[in-house]
Amino acid sequence: MTEPVPVSAIDTPVPIIDLDIVERNLARMQAYADAHGLALRPHIKTHKLPVFAKRQVELGAVGITCQKLGEAEVMADAGLDDILISYPIIGAAKGARLAALAKRVKMRVAVDNPLVLETVARAGQEAGTPIGVLIEFDSGMKRTGVTSVEAALALIVQVKAASGLRFDGLMTYPSTPETVGFVRAIKEAGVHLPMVSGGGTPGWAHAHEIEGVTEMRVGTYIYNDRTLVEADAAKLEDCALTVHATVVSRPEEDRAILDCGSKTLTSDLIPRGASAGYGYLPDYPDARIDRVSEEHGMLDLSQSARKPALGERVRIIPNHVCVVTNLHNEVVVSRGGMVEGVWPVAARGLTR
Amino acid sequence: MTEPVPVSAIDTPVPIIDLDIVERNLARMQAYADAHGLALRPHIKTHKLPVFAKRQVELGAVGITCQKLGEAEVMADAGLDDILISYPIIGAAKGARLAALAKRVKMRVAVDNPLVLETVARAGQEAGTPIGVLIEFDSGMKRTGVTSVEAALALIVQVKAASGLRFDGLMTYPSTPETVGFVRAIKEAGVHLPMVSGGGTPGWAHAHEIEGVTEMRVGTYIYNDRTLVEADAAKLEDCALTVHATVVSRPEEDRAILDCGSKTLTSDLIPRGASAGYGYLPDYPDARIDRVSEEHGMLDLSQSARKPALGERVRIIPNHVCVVTNLHNEVVVSRGGMVEGVWPVAARGLTR
Repeated sequence: MTEPVPVSAIDTPVPIIDLDIVERNLARMQAYADAHGLALRPHIKTHKLPVFAKRQVELGAVGITCQKLGEAEVMADAGLDDILISYPIIGAAKGARLAALAKRVKMRVAVDNPLVLETVARAGQEAGTPIGVLIEFDSGMKRTGVTSVEAALALIVQVKAASGLRFDGLMTYPSTPETVGFVRAIKEAGVHLPMVSGGGTPGWAHAHEIEGVTEMRVGTYIYNDRTLVEADAAKLEDCALTVHATVVSRPEEDRAILDCGSKTLTSDLIPRGASAGYGYLPDYPDARIDRVSEEHGMLDLSQSARKPALGERVRIIPNHVCVVTNLHNEVVVSRGGMVEGVWPVAARGLTR
Repeated sequence: MTEPVPVSAIDTPVPIIDLDIVERNLARMQAYADAHGLALRPHIKTHKLPVFAKRQVELGAVGITCQKLGEAEVMADAGLDDILISYPIIGAAKGARLAALAKRVKMRVAVDNPLVLETVARAGQEAGTPIGVLIEFDSGMKRTGVTSVEAALALIVQVKAASGLRFDGLMTYPSTPETVGFVRAIKEAGVHLPMVSGGGTPGWAHAHEIEGVTEMRVGTYIYNDRTLVEADAAKLEDCALTVHATVVSRPEEDRAILDCGSKTLTSDLIPRGASAGYGYLPDYPDARIDRVSEEHGMLDLSQSARKPALGERVRIIPNHVCVVTNLHNEVVVSRGGMVEGVWPVAARGLTR
């Protein structure tokens, strides 16, 4: 780019990232982890951009977390060399891809059942180098993860007995008070735990209070979003990604239509949240995106004394920023309101 | 592809389309439109695939509908030559793209305010060929569209006076009983209406009962989904796109975790729907995807006598299929359970 271009010159709807805020967010989390002797292993699902993953490592992260093999492949191609896949990997096709990855970078995988264990062990054998295993346990979320100490111990025995695997410790999401008792029980059974990986940006500032956890897996902190502001885990000025949109219709005094709907913002609401609607307009805090269809955001202005005009450009802080980046082929990055680049979201849409 | 490959050999999660069902759905809608003397102008937002748009025209569609310029550009590149953009187009950047489109294919745009009118008129002038305008009115959805007959009449006067524009009639979404009165009032004011374009797959079978409507804009009928089944607009066997997923964890007797979450299915629930959850499992009708995170689908099995095993592959009919195709870089197309191809979703993610 030869001439400086203001972000306002980029047509809407468009996700715009402020690189100064990103840098501040990354530095703050790394400083926290360092201060408390915690390893930081950022989850790339939020940004899906190799350049940010590299910056996270440069600042001190021990490696990265990916949810899917496709994401890990993009990151390994870009030179990231220490990757945890915090997701069950099952089957021959995925096993072959995991083996190929393990041949070139240091891989770890979360395991919560024997079928994943079998897939990962075969991959380790095929790679000719053991793959690290973290046993995933449920700390209250009722998602993946074994639900009993006994089940974890049984899997640990199998991991230690299997060729192709290296037992590296435990993993959970998020870190909760229940985490402490679980980790303690495993240790009391005589198991040495090289790593205990916990996570979650919402509770990041309390990670050091969860006894036994050695590593933080956090993702959303790079951009932050409305959910984290509501959870007191970030401030509005820490939100690095805003969607810029245009008022494309003003059919009634109290209704504006924005050119961003669920195809731009997603349909994610804030779970159990006090904040209604599909995003927050910092310049119109009392306006509410009360409905979305794919390309329309219906803005209720009945509680807003100031009302945006037809054709006006507005900014939106999304409810959940990770799912927003996954919708977009590219993001615009900026500093001080000027465009620095347009980056393809390299690991977007990789569900396998 | 040299050897026939069953769809079950494609790794999960993956959207799989049955081409026989697609063909049946397309033929049924065209036959309905023909039987009632209605023009059919399919909305491509559901499939986002030039090959299906061409097939729709081949079967008798008068043209296609796109929501955004980016979609129209992909379709024009593929040879589609009669395109309605059913969305407000505002600003110089979009105007220039519209002009470029109008130079090579027949373009129409929906207009509900003077700013859109101005953008489209300039584009028509720049193209050197008038762009067709349909005045969008609100038939009850409270989205875009003028809310009064007076406002429509005022815009019609401006359209007729503007160079670069051709007045082609009215447009609304969806077609409702209110539509009849609005159209009648415009005609009673002495305005000749070459076209009145209505829409909506949910009410498709009643389109001919809405007096005054000359054209159907329908999109979802090509694939159908759980929302349409619940609305009695399709049957389960008319659902052409299913997401194939794998049970990747079975932490408890009544809980299975699928490898498809909001990044595969979206977070769309069925509005005002009786059917809870994030999709329907035809092989486990009493199982319910009661929560999703990005890569996890939490399947509640407490009401299901049969329960899928760890590693089992299941099929899911999505709640809202249009938003599902928008998530995926490619879809697998099949006939009789055998893979016919893997197609890039060419117009995916084009929000501008």
